[in-house]
Amino acid sequence: MAKKPELDDFRVPFFDDGKKPKPFDLNAVDPSAKPFSRGTKEEDRLRLGEIGAQLDELQEKLHAQRRQRVLLVLQGMDTSGKDGTIRAVFHEVDPLGLRIVPFKAPSEREAAHDFLWRIHAQAPMAGELCVFNRSHYEDVLVPPVLKLIDDEECERRYRHIRDFEALLADTGTSIIKCFLHISKDEQRERLQARIDDPTKHWKFDASDLEARKQWDDYQHAYAAALGVTSTPYAPWYVIPGNSKTHRNVMVAELLLRTLSRMNLDFPPPKESLKGVIVE
Amino acid sequence: MAKKPELDDFRVPFFDDGKKPKPFDLNAVDPSAKPFSRGTKEEDRLRLGEIGAQLDELQEKLHAQRRQRVLLVLQGMDTSGKDGTIRAVFHEVDPLGLRIVPFKAPSEREAAHDFLWRIHAQAPMAGELCVFNRSHYEDVLVPPVLKLIDDEECERRYRHIRDFEALLADTGTSIIKCFLHISKDEQRERLQARIDDPTKHWKFDASDLEARKQWDDYQHAYAAALGVTSTPYAPWYVIPGNSKTHRNVMVAELLLRTLSRMNLDFPPPKESLKGVIVE
Repeated sequence: MAKKPELDDFRVPFFDDGKKPKPFDLNAVDPSAKPFSRGTKEEDRLRLGEIGAQLDELQEKLHAQRRQRVLLVLQGMDTSGKDGTIRAVFHEVDPLGLRIVPFKAPSEREAAHDFLWRIHAQAPMAGELCVFNRSHYEDVLVPPVLKLIDDEECERRYRHIRDFEALLADTGTSIIKCFLHISKDEQRERLQARIDDPTKHWKFDASDLEARKQWDDYQHAYAAALGVTSTPYAPWYVIPGNSKTHRNVMVAELLLRTLSRMNLDFPPPKESLKGVIVE
Repeated sequence: MAKKPELDDFRVPFFDDGKKPKPFDLNAVDPSAKPFSRGTKEEDRLRLGEIGAQLDELQEKLHAQRRQRVLLVLQGMDTSGKDGTIRAVFHEVDPLGLRIVPFKAPSEREAAHDFLWRIHAQAPMAGELCVFNRSHYEDVLVPPVLKLIDDEECERRYRHIRDFEALLADTGTSIIKCFLHISKDEQRERLQARIDDPTKHWKFDASDLEARKQWDDYQHAYAAALGVTSTPYAPWYVIPGNSKTHRNVMVAELLLRTLSRMNLDFPPPKESLKGVIVE
């Protein structure tokens, strides 16, 4: 009998400082898999709605408690669905306690600091659920592919990232990182669809086609980065991303599990308010 | 025959620099009125859903265009429904292009700057729709009520606010400001409900009861501020707020009208993408 899939089957094995760094084998995960599908798209959408309502409830408690923080990092190749995931997963969640932070190419001022400076400035505060749409991981993907930094510098950055995430985690932030994993064919279809629909040209940048030419290099850079930055306090999950509905459900399930484990509840009643009558 | 109510009937008359400053008469607006209701609560909720879908569409174009900006300022007494309005009006809007900025009491660092410094830092950028949950208006409400600043200083602040909003408007920001207008009785009921429900104590601050004791002073401070800061480029609207559903519909209608007048559309197709085949 086939084993029922579990979310942790898609977790990148934790980095072990004592051993030789090992890239994660992305070929081990089929981008078209739908392990957490309930059957039809309709059923999956219903499930997403259910999770959304639960996320909304948990997030209200997170916000009320103002003690813990949550950080969801989304990474993936162009068209892998970062924007779509945010839209779908957070549809039911109150915008009040949610902060979406898109990271683009650094400004001149940002680039004049260390690469974690602008990231740290956007870290979630107590009671907040932050989503990083791209992140500090861009700095260990683009520069090595474009050969702007050497292996040694890249290793140093990996270490700084682990240390930085350890700081966030130690001080009350629950971190989940999702790599939205699509196939090269799927990307072709999605890029072509954007080209064929003139109202979607604004989403398109000439550099997208350049990056596609370096598909393998980027996959290698991801494999390397994932392998050495998945930790018990900031795990990476590889999300099969060819099916949009399934991708949304899986990210939502992960987030739900994370929030469920945080013992979130409304703060205790204030004794001083007992029996108070407003005049 | 009664005249059909229009949104602009609830707009605070524009400040006229040549005339003696005149406070807005808040008694002229019934907080229990429901001028834009379609009948039942159910019908109003349906209408809100319709507007939400249109707002979502317009906001996508705003985001795609990355040229104009929108700022919605929400002000009102405690329990007037600022949080609830944000939750309801933006339920259908993609969180990607939305930024909610809550302003609390200024930090020590913020207070060490002029009162518009922290506000300016949060102004919407091109393509963004920002909601200020409280704002720079707190600085012409709390200090005069607590007698921390005199009339002359307050007048200076009004002028700085007009100038600041003129800067934002001149550089591409559409501004709407909503005062959520509830009655003193309605506030009593809402505060009492929070006290009676221990899971809502976290929303309650002892200072809320203090501020309530100064209800009339705050109403006067609002009346004065509204009267001299409603301008063609940053108008104030007084939103009857005793009915939550109606309040939501009315704020949504205002926002929809504002976005509809901005000539939002997707940027023109990129000629360079014509006929491109992705490999």
